[in-house]
Amino acid sequence: MTVKHPADSICIMTDMVLPGETNPLNNLFGGELLARMDRAASIAARRHSGHIVVTASVNHVAFNSAIPLGSVVTIEAKVSRAFKSSMETYIDVWIEDRISGEKTKANEAIYTFVAVDETGCPVEVHALEPQTELEIQRYDAALRRKQLSLVLAGKMSPHDATELKALFM
Amino acid sequence: MTVKHPADSICIMTDMVLPGETNPLNNLFGGELLARMDRAASIAARRHSGHIVVTASVNHVAFNSAIPLGSVVTIEAKVSRAFKSSMETYIDVWIEDRISGEKTKANEAIYTFVAVDETGCPVEVHALEPQTELEIQRYDAALRRKQLSLVLAGKMSPHDATELKALFM
Amino acid sequence: MTVKHPADSICIMTDMVLPGETNPLNNLFGGELLARMDRAASIAARRHSGHIVVTASVNHVAFNSAIPLGSVVTIEAKVSRAFKSSMETYIDVWIEDRISGEKTKANEAIYTFVAVDETGCPVEVHALEPQTELEIQRYDAALRRKQLSLVLAGKMSPHDATELKALFM
Amino acid sequence: MTVKHPADSICIMTDMVLPGETNPLNNLFGGELLARMDRAASIAARRHSGHIVVTASVNHVAFNSAIPLGSVVTIEAKVSRAFKSSMETYIDVWIEDRISGEKTKANEAIYTFVAVDETGCPVEVHALEPQTELEIQRYDAALRRKQLSLVLAGKMSPHDATELKALFM
Amino acid sequence: MTVKHPADSICIMTDMVLPGETNPLNNLFGGELLARMDRAASIAARRHSGHIVVTASVNHVAFNSAIPLGSVVTIEAKVSRAFKSSMETYIDVWIEDRISGEKTKANEAIYTFVAVDETGCPVEVHALEPQTELEIQRYDAALRRKQLSLVLAGKMSPHDATELKALFM
Amino acid sequence: MTVKHPADSICIMTDMVLPGETNPLNNLFGGELLARMDRAASIAARRHSGHIVVTASVNHVAFNSAIPLGSVVTIEAKVSRAFKSSMETYIDVWIEDRISGEKTKANEAIYTFVAVDETGCPVEVHALEPQTELEIQRYDAALRRKQLSLVLAGKMSPHDATELKALFM
Repeated sequence: MTVKHPADSICIMTDMVLPGETNPLNNLFGGELLARMDRAASIAARRHSGHIVVTASVNHVAFNSAIPLGSVVTIEAKVSRAFKSSMETYIDVWIEDRISGEKTKANEAIYTFVAVDETGCPVEVHALEPQTELEIQRYDAALRRKQLSLVLAGKMSPHDATELKALFM
Repeated sequence: MTVKHPADSICIMTDMVLPGETNPLNNLFGGELLARMDRAASIAARRHSGHIVVTASVNHVAFNSAIPLGSVVTIEAKVSRAFKSSMETYIDVWIEDRISGEKTKANEAIYTFVAVDETGCPVEVHALEPQTELEIQRYDAALRRKQLSLVLAGKMSPHDATELKALFM
Repeated sequence: MTVKHPADSICIMTDMVLPGETNPLNNLFGGELLARMDRAASIAARRHSGHIVVTASVNHVAFNSAIPLGSVVTIEAKVSRAFKSSMETYIDVWIEDRISGEKTKANEAIYTFVAVDETGCPVEVHALEPQTELEIQRYDAALRRKQLSLVLAGKMSPHDATELKALFM
Repeated sequence: MTVKHPADSICIMTDMVLPGETNPLNNLFGGELLARMDRAASIAARRHSGHIVVTASVNHVAFNSAIPLGSVVTIEAKVSRAFKSSMETYIDVWIEDRISGEKTKANEAIYTFVAVDETGCPVEVHALEPQTELEIQRYDAALRRKQLSLVLAGKMSPHDATELKALFM
Repeated sequence: MTVKHPADSICIMTDMVLPGETNPLNNLFGGELLARMDRAASIAARRHSGHIVVTASVNHVAFNSAIPLGSVVTIEAKVSRAFKSSMETYIDVWIEDRISGEKTKANEAIYTFVAVDETGCPVEVHALEPQTELEIQRYDAALRRKQLSLVLAGKMSPHDATELKALFM
Repeated sequence: MTVKHPADSICIMTDMVLPGETNPLNNLFGGELLARMDRAASIAARRHSGHIVVTASVNHVAFNSAIPLGSVVTIEAKVSRAFKSSMETYIDVWIEDRISGEKTKANEAIYTFVAVDETGCPVEVHALEPQTELEIQRYDAALRRKQLSLVLAGKMSPHDATELKALFM
């Protein structure tokens, strides 16, 4: 299997915030943003693997700033690490100032997908090799997050989570 | 401020899976489930606090099993721990067998909300006192999750995350 | 066939009113409420019968009070009487005050469903035995409503509608 | 105030059934049809009155036949009787055969609306004079339905419901 | 094959503008209007041909005036000319004043559809004979538009586009 | 006012086709694609102008190939020519093969927008200077299309449409 790079899977989804997608405070409804990120990130994972993918988990989403009605929102999703058949994707959300065009970071999120065949069985995916400094940081952190998931789910003993343990020593 | 119990805030949202809410494998689209859970959990947080609430983060969602078209899905959300102005909510998702009526757990998720006033400023919320054994477990784990969030965000030194550190010692 | 109780079929659907679901007066759009009640009531009928159900008629819906944007709406549906293959369901709609948490009745509605097999043919359903006083009242009224339906549809002579006739004597 | 005719208020809404509007049996979802009829009938009532209108009740809807995916559905709504500030509307739903173009009746429904001013207060509406034989039949029946509503709501004694009582004598 | 008239295919779709269908200026969102016109015009083409139809092109849409939230919008679509297996449809969009009932033209549009069989292959359609003066004008212009399409797509030499060329001589 | 380039305004919207967005042939519903293109192109025009923009016309859309359920669709919109206060945008639509990742062109479209201030009055926009060969071609053709629009609307005599006339000489 070929090694692929995060840039090979990048998915860009730029869209507006219309009134039908807001909450009662006139900002983008949180659930709608979660759904858009799921669509964008699953496309990145599908591009990396060449397979159908299903959402396995949402590991972390931070809603740092509200996104007002009428905003232009850009969601950028890239695979941050590939495991056997699962892929962690990292999602950055930006809004831009209409007049200056300047972009500011609004949110980020981490979703994990599993590649499956037509019958729904997991299949192996390409390895991922990070290239930029940020990609390397996220790649390394992905292993700690995976260990943490396994520890919290009771599927790994905390003592075996070597990467994670190192954080606290 | 009064102390409240998880049972005071419970929100039950039972609904069906119609074709317009599915993915190409004919299961409930992940983004739609994320949005429904956001609606249910924000109602629980609003009931606990008596305030407008905004989604602060999605800490963990595990998609354990696919939810097929035509299913009846029950989402149950309760506040699991209250901090100064934020509330962690725990969400359990069930599907039921049409003939036997038996319910099985499909997913669970953790979302955090912040109570705000009309101008969007955080306001203090009631303390929460867990009652059942499961509520106590989730209450205790909520503190570890909060520490973990702060550590991962670089806002707390791992050495100060005493609850979390204990896990790895 | 087992006898079942209204409590066995109760379906609770709690949800918010977002801007995309309002009418030009900023209240929940009537059609959206009709659709939500259809979903909730069909789940109650499905739970009672263990079968696929299809909407047969909407017998009565009273829109007593408008439901403003941002409200938390609780729809409670229960089977009120079972006939051979059809089931009358009674739906109560509540909204709650955000600060006090107090609930007030906003609407009520009656929908009738028919249980069908996979080919769409009607199938027999469990008998229903009401338990609370309110359930007994609604159970009794259901027969008058059924006779009225048959009379208005020209399928029963007014003189045979004994329950109904008694009202006017 | 001018007297108006049912033909003055007729609203025709022809539309398709797309996959996002179906139930798991691949027919038009009942709730979606209820919402479409609400939109069509409220336009008829608005045209009759020249005022904003709000749905007051759904008096009767019979789902006689399923409407399959891909159908062309025509909803025809007309005011059937005007009272002081409320209007009964009668809705006929047709589907047509794609090849022959022949139309068959799928459903009918009765919705009642109240005309209101900008502050939500009821305002008086034009009288309605039926013209065709069918319009006259429906106009006469509307009074019986109104009496029935009042009787069932406990707002009129059955003995005063003269039109209705006559049915059973 | 029978010759048919524009009046045989007319499709009327009257509907409201609800908040979930607006843009940030509180007018009907352009994309929503394009989608409604597509639905209405495809019904006209389906009625003319008796076949499944697919959208082939949108030739021209002029958004002359904004359609505010709460408007009643009437879309009228008719086949304006039939070619071998394609049909040009002409769409007129009207809004009406709530108090006077007066209708004003808001937009017009031209969409072209192709009739296909169940496998997606084009099939021949009935000829169309215009009747009113406006129908004749649109019928004549349709040929120039078709030639223009072919010229712009490089599938016809400008010198063979006789109807069109005449315009500029 | 600064001169800007098409690359400054490019808007990329990558998204999936879910079941709720299909037509009865299981392809992306034409109206949904028209709406998505409107959103993408209006973002490009907004980025070019720094102003609110409203759709003025849809000049041409060719639906060359159906887009099946489950596809990943990339919409790329760029301003192709700026006039006084209006901007023509050119939209290219691509679908990609899941396994090979190869992209094929599915559709293209031309939409025109007008920049407006908060009161809805047209405002002047930056000039546009095309850079690539394709951008230059589209820039030149935009003037012919504008003349054609004016001629067809009766606002320009065919003899003054010099660019357009040249085509037929």
